[in-house]
Amino acid sequence: MTDPQQLVDDLLDFIRTKIPLARAMDLRLHHYSRDMLALAAPLAPNVNDKGCAFGGSLASLMTLAGWALVELRLQERGEDCDVFVGGSTVRYLEPVWSDFQAQAQPAQDADWNTFFGTLDTLGKARIEVFCMVPGNERRAAATLQARFVAKRRA
Amino acid sequence: MTDPQQLVDDLLDFIRTKIPLARAMDLRLHHYSRDMLALAAPLAPNVNDKGCAFGGSLASLMTLAGWALVELRLQERGEDCDVFVGGSTVRYLEPVWSDFQAQAQPAQDADWNTFFGTLDTLGKARIEVFCMVPGNERRAAATLQARFVAKRRA
Repeated sequence: MTDPQQLVDDLLDFIRTKIPLARAMDLRLHHYSRDMLALAAPLAPNVNDKGCAFGGSLASLMTLAGWALVELRLQERGEDCDVFVGGSTVRYLEPVWSDFQAQAQPAQDADWNTFFGTLDTLGKARIEVFCMVPGNERRAAATLQARFVAKRRA
Repeated sequence: MTDPQQLVDDLLDFIRTKIPLARAMDLRLHHYSRDMLALAAPLAPNVNDKGCAFGGSLASLMTLAGWALVELRLQERGEDCDVFVGGSTVRYLEPVWSDFQAQAQPAQDADWNTFFGTLDTLGKARIEVFCMVPGNERRAAATLQARFVAKRRA
C-alpha cells in the first residue's frame, strides 16, 4: 500500500517538472484529504494588468487541482491511467488581490464507485469535479466545474 | 485617428509586460482584422506531462485573445474601459501536438452596436466572444465561449 502523502508529494513534483507553466505559476500543495485537494499559488507570478490574479492562472490552478484529485484517487487504487480534462465551465465572481488557492472536490452528483465501476467495465470513465478559489468572507472568487476522463493505459 | 496596427502592437507589448504568465507562455500576435484576433504560442513553454499542449495554456490563450479583441474594439472607438472576463465554457476536443494559435471573434449572437449602445447608456456592457484553437483538418482542437464585461473608468 503506497502512502497517500508520498503519492501527492510525488505528483506535485511531477507537475512542476513536466508542466513549465505550473512551475511559472509557482504552484504548491496546500492540502490533501480523501475528497479534497487544494493547491496554492502566490499572486506575484500570476498577476494581471489590474494588479489582481490573472483569469488564466485562476482557471489553470482550478483545473490542475481537479486533475490532481482524480489522478491521486486512481493512483491510490493502483490504476495506471491517462487523465485529461474534457471541458469546463468557469465563473469569475470577484477579483483576487492576494495569494490564492484552488480547492477541488467531486461535484455534487459525482460518485467514485460509479467512476471506478465504469473504468473496470470499459477501461475508460468520466467524473465531474467542482473547484473553487475562496475569496472574501467565505464567498467563492471563482468556480470551475470540469469533466475529467480517465483511460487505462494499454 | 490612431492606427489600428499600432494599437494592437501596443496592446501585445502591454500584455507581455503586465502579465507574467503571458510572457511565460511566450504569446505573440498572429493576426488582427476588424472582427478577428489571433494570438500564437509555441508548444515548448506550454507543454503538459503528455507532451501536448497544457489545457491551462489553451484556455489562457483563448481568453487573452478574446479579451484583446474587446479591448481593441473599445480603444479604436476612443473608449477608456476596464475589460474583464465574467465566465467561460471551454471544450477540449483533441490534443495539440505543435505550436498553436487561438482565434477570437464575436459570438454568433453578439453585436458590437448593441454593446456600444449599452456602454453609452449605462457606462457598462457585456459581449460574448467565441474563441477556438484550430486543430487538424480544420476541426477545432479546443473552443471557448466567454462573456466579457467592459466598464468605463471613472
